[in-house]
Amino acid sequence: MKFTIITLFPNLIKSYISESIIKRAIEKNKVDIEIVDLRNYTNYSHNQVDDYQFGGGKGMVLMVEPIVNAIEKYKTNESLVILTSPQGKTWNQKLSKNYANNCKHIIIICGHYEGFDERVLDYVDLEVSIGDYVLTGGELASLVLVDSITRLIDGVIQNESHLNESFENNLLDYSVYTKPVDFRGKVVPEVLLSGHHANIEKFRHESRLKNTYLKRPDLLNEQELSKTDKEFLNNLKNRKEE
Amino acid sequence: MKFTIITLFPNLIKSYISESIIKRAIEKNKVDIEIVDLRNYTNYSHNQVDDYQFGGGKGMVLMVEPIVNAIEKYKTNESLVILTSPQGKTWNQKLSKNYANNCKHIIIICGHYEGFDERVLDYVDLEVSIGDYVLTGGELASLVLVDSITRLIDGVIQNESHLNESFENNLLDYSVYTKPVDFRGKVVPEVLLSGHHANIEKFRHESRLKNTYLKRPDLLNEQELSKTDKEFLNNLKNRKEE
Repeated sequence: MKFTIITLFPNLIKSYISESIIKRAIEKNKVDIEIVDLRNYTNYSHNQVDDYQFGGGKGMVLMVEPIVNAIEKYKTNESLVILTSPQGKTWNQKLSKNYANNCKHIIIICGHYEGFDERVLDYVDLEVSIGDYVLTGGELASLVLVDSITRLIDGVIQNESHLNESFENNLLDYSVYTKPVDFRGKVVPEVLLSGHHANIEKFRHESRLKNTYLKRPDLLNEQELSKTDKEFLNNLKNRKEE
Repeated sequence: MKFTIITLFPNLIKSYISESIIKRAIEKNKVDIEIVDLRNYTNYSHNQVDDYQFGGGKGMVLMVEPIVNAIEKYKTNESLVILTSPQGKTWNQKLSKNYANNCKHIIIICGHYEGFDERVLDYVDLEVSIGDYVLTGGELASLVLVDSITRLIDGVIQNESHLNESFENNLLDYSVYTKPVDFRGKVVPEVLLSGHHANIEKFRHESRLKNTYLKRPDLLNEQELSKTDKEFLNNLKNRKEE
């Protein structure tokens, strides 16, 4: 997998990557990250890449030309072009998985400041938002995309599987515990110390159901729940109401 | 506003901040960012901060003790303690605004790898997720929180107001354009070049409605829409169906 990140702040991306787990993925040749300075693709003098918006109003708007020039320089038949923006499709784990498995080259354009000239949208495949909040720029958003996709690429992180992690099967992860067994009177659930695999498995599955029910009930999908799951959740609900 | 970020990767946070707009906010004394190395707060030898989970399974779990030690060292009466985790409450612009206006000190704990000992939750005020995807660690999530809050603090970014930006009044931002007027035959909407302020205002308001309707209809709140807004959206809907 190759990422090409087009940004006004190449150092921001570079410094983050050089300290992160993504660096290990690069060293293992699992991903390749190319950082492109948008200022090298303007036709204007003084490396100008943004200007005031037509119609008035403060805030600088990224011009369409440098962005399109940069896209056209790096785009191949295998590229997916993503633009980060608060107006985009909300990123999620399913999209991460899909692109980790099916994409060879992702070009990410970091939006910035007051936004970008609307005409940029005609040259991108996907406008993506990492959540319903506004950031000073798209650099953090692009790092979030790179991180969430990269960790799902085969061989990047040591993990028996991603089967239990949050958002798989519309459930959150189960609760985990490590030493000490007793921390200020708060004790690890006994079943986890029992060595009884089937019971541990059951505890963990129920823990996923419980965490999702308590923290993110909106994720639960009735149709994906077994009869036993539904009974467990009904009991939980009744106990809560008592 | 002061942020205290507790992390296993202090350099990751430091290098990002030193290149970003947050740095300017620090120089203007609008925010103060304290970076705390979690490894300094363990009682175990070799700076151990994580261990295998009880009950079996790969992946290292952050221990409760070092985290609680670090929280107790930095927490005051004015602190809000946030833990980043995919299981948390989903972050949004309203939360950013609320904390930018009402908080003096935010402690952010960066979750990591396979998670953290469940008992950590008894010592935090808020578990926060920046979106429905899994990251290698909480560092990017904590930077997202810092960035989205910091830019809303008075005097941090030059901005006449945040009144029109995405997620205000449950609408996305309006489309913006800058030079050139004609880019490969794609032309800036005439009204923006007209100098007619009332018409520009109307165009921008309708642009917000249109962008939200087309990209994020889930955000629209019937009750907050005026009669004119509803008519505009109905026309848009009818035209789409034709």
